[in-house]
This record gives sequence, structure tokens and C-alpha cells, in this order.
Amino acid sequence: MAEESKNNATMIVFDGDLDKAIASFIIATGAAAMGKNVTMFFTFWGLNVLRKEEHIEVKDKNFLEGMFAKLMPRGPGKLKLSKMNYGGVGSHLMKKMMKEHNVSTLPELMELAQDLDVKMVACTMTMDVMGLRKEELIDGLEYAGVASYLAEAEDANVNLFI
Amino acid sequence: MAEESKNNATMIVFDGDLDKAIASFIIATGAAAMGKNVTMFFTFWGLNVLRKEEHIEVKDKNFLEGMFAKLMPRGPGKLKLSKMNYGGVGSHLMKKMMKEHNVSTLPELMELAQDLDVKMVACTMTMDVMGLRKEELIDGLEYAGVASYLAEAEDANVNLFI
Amino acid sequence: MAEESKNNATMIVFDGDLDKAIASFIIATGAAAMGKNVTMFFTFWGLNVLRKEEHIEVKDKNFLEGMFAKLMPRGPGKLKLSKMNYGGVGSHLMKKMMKEHNVSTLPELMELAQDLDVKMVACTMTMDVMGLRKEELIDGLEYAGVASYLAEAEDANVNLFI
Repeated sequence: MAEESKNNATMIVFDGDLDKAIASFIIATGAAAMGKNVTMFFTFWGLNVLRKEEHIEVKDKNFLEGMFAKLMPRGPGKLKLSKMNYGGVGSHLMKKMMKEHNVSTLPELMELAQDLDVKMVACTMTMDVMGLRKEELIDGLEYAGVASYLAEAEDANVNLFI
Repeated sequence: MAEESKNNATMIVFDGDLDKAIASFIIATGAAAMGKNVTMFFTFWGLNVLRKEEHIEVKDKNFLEGMFAKLMPRGPGKLKLSKMNYGGVGSHLMKKMMKEHNVSTLPELMELAQDLDVKMVACTMTMDVMGLRKEELIDGLEYAGVASYLAEAEDANVNLFI
Repeated sequence: MAEESKNNATMIVFDGDLDKAIASFIIATGAAAMGKNVTMFFTFWGLNVLRKEEHIEVKDKNFLEGMFAKLMPRGPGKLKLSKMNYGGVGSHLMKKMMKEHNVSTLPELMELAQDLDVKMVACTMTMDVMGLRKEELIDGLEYAGVASYLAEAEDANVNLFI
């Protein structure tokens, strides 16, 4: 019985680059549309994909946490390409070329993922380390640690680290 | 029955760096030699691994597509290391050191993969976005989208994102 | 019967960045604590995670091997962040923030992994190519090639390329 359930998919979204984020959501929404249970686990730089675009005032951050939060991109609109970013020109052109070919934007893909019940989990350990608070991240997330990821991966055969 | 077929391997070749491309083909050819069905799905920068080395004149490219095609490496000979590339010196030295130890070159590994019936698939969506045409890529490829990748991954337990 | 054994986990540790190394050991120790057999296969830049911190004199290295060895980081204390490294400031701050939140350091995680019988394998082919010798790497490792990795991956459903 246990074996028969290994049909799900999980993704660890680690890098948080624009291109890798797009790829992970295209895979996630595709897999969900095929009827798979899909869990995306956002950790380290991947958490930046989930940040709200506006600045959220958080009172109890220490200096380092504040600095990290300031230097890291806030949400899909600010993410860089993993290659050929050229100070943001590359990511701008990539979005333009995606639009020309009617490919969904990253925010649209994220919305679709939530509509398709893709489980989006923010890694609490790296949130702590990087000083990111729940109120800085978008709605509709779950919060958990690596044990939760591993439990999901247990029932999946497609397990990607992106 | 379905479970018994989860013995195949798939790889999403995303980065297209020389070292990662070599690693992916070593895994792919090793898995194929063990009797696994192996599918490599080339997307985003990974498509550059599949480009022909010579310039192919394509008439209907727009300005952006032409620029992207010009800036991205054309085939295995032009790929960079993901680290310590030093403007191409690193990749040159890596090839030299591989040769000294009789490790197959990337073009040799790619040929071996095709001989071993590794299925090499170019992602049509990212080809569209980046403006790459079939005539610019090597022979012997299949062309498909993410649904095709997911169908292959369904029957595999080794599913890597490289 | 074969199917029932697909509960293990393998990781190819390719990049050897500080953050990715930490992530891989957190996943590995978490999975081992859940009772999974875990194999970590260190290849290319991932081998640097396994290097001893002190300089080991090796007599039979050629010039290129010596140069590569010199330029690559020696062990966990010298690894860089994959992003926001800022010449080592970022990795220093990341370690500080991890300490503030009582997250284990990379050397502690590596020790824990060995206590939990995580199998740590150094890729002999890339050791050869990069000119790294067994005496330069930490104790308690196994030495093998891609076929050994694939044999382990055969019995696993969580197979990550990091």
C-alpha cells in the first residue's frame, strides 16, 4: 500500500532565481494538473520568492536580520536570472520574451499553483536564520521544517532540488 | 504493475554549465548501461548544450531572439564551468585534466548517450521563449513540453534537476 | 520485493557551496534519523566539503593539480555562499546568524551524519581529474564511481542533485 502512494511530487526551491522559480512552478502546476499531490518547500534564497513586494515594518529584527532582508529581493518582481542577468536587463528581457510567447508570468504561475492546491511550505529554520517573519511572506503558506519535507518526499518519486 | 516500472531515470538539464553537463551525461550513460530507460529534458540554459557549433542563419528571429542567441554559448565547446571558469581558462584546464585521465569529452559522452538510446528532449516552451529553432540544435532530439517530462518522471525513481 | 526497498535517499553533492552543503547535511541527517539509508555522493566542487583544513603535502601532483588544489577551498571553514558571499562577509554572517539560532554548524552536521551512518562517498573519477588524493580528505569516507551511486539510487525514491 505504501508503495502505491509514491506518485506525488516535491520540490525544494533553494536558489530563488527568477528562471529557476519559473521552472519550479511550471513543473509544480503541470504535476498538479495531472492529479499529483505537489509540495514545494522553500528554503534559503528560495524564501525570497514568497516575500511580499512591499516593505513590511518588523520591529524586533536585529541589525543583521534587517540588513539581510534589505539586500535580498522582495518577491517575484525583484528576482534575478541565474545567468545573463546583466544587472536586471536580462530578467527584464526574459519576462518580455515570455510575454510575447504567452507564457504565464511568475505571479500568475504562483496563483495557479495555489488554485491547484499545490502545498507551498516555508522552511521555518531558514526563516529564523535569515530573520524573515510570517507577515513578510504571502498568504496561503504552510510553515514547517525538514521533517515535514521528508514526510512528503516519502510518498513521492519525483523529488527535485532546484 | 505500475509500481514495478518506477526504475527509470530522468534528468532536467537546466543550467547548461560544462561541468554540470558532463555530470548529467555521465549519470545518463551510466544509467542507460545498467538497462534503465533514461530521458534528459533540456530546458532554459540547458538548451545551449544541444546547439550546433556553427552559426545557423535563421531569418525570422526578432532582435531580442537574435541577441540572446548571440550571447548564449553554441554547443559543448563553448560552455563555461559553473565555478572557477576564469574567462574560459578554467574550462580549458578542466578539459585538459579530463583528457589526461582518459575521461570522455562532453561530445563523446553525448554521442555515447545517443548510441545507448538515451532520450534527449528539447523543451519547446523555452525554445520558443529564447527564440531557438530546431535547425540550430543537433540531430536526434525529440521536442516536447513539461507534460511529456512529467509522464517520463512518473515511471522513474531517479529524477534529478541539474 | 524490490519495490518495497525504494525508501532510501541519495544526494549528489556537486556544488560545494556552504549553504548547499548545509542544506544537504540537514536533509541527510533528518532522513537518517527517520530510519532511511542515506548515501551522499560528493563529486566535482562537492569534494571540497570533504577536504581536510590543513595543507597536506602530496608529492606526485603535477602543476595543474597543484594549482587547482590551491585555488579550491579546503574544507567546511573555507566554503563560500552560493549567493551574497561578498568576499566571505556573507558566509561569516550566515554562520553567525545560524549560531544565534542554535542551528548546528556544518562540521557538527557532518559529524552527526557519520554518527547516524550516513554513507559519504567521494567520487573517484572527479578526484582523479581534479588531482585530489585520499590523504587530503577526511576519514570515514568510501570511494567509488557513478555505478555505485546508481546502485544506491536504485533503492531510493528521494534522489537529489544539490
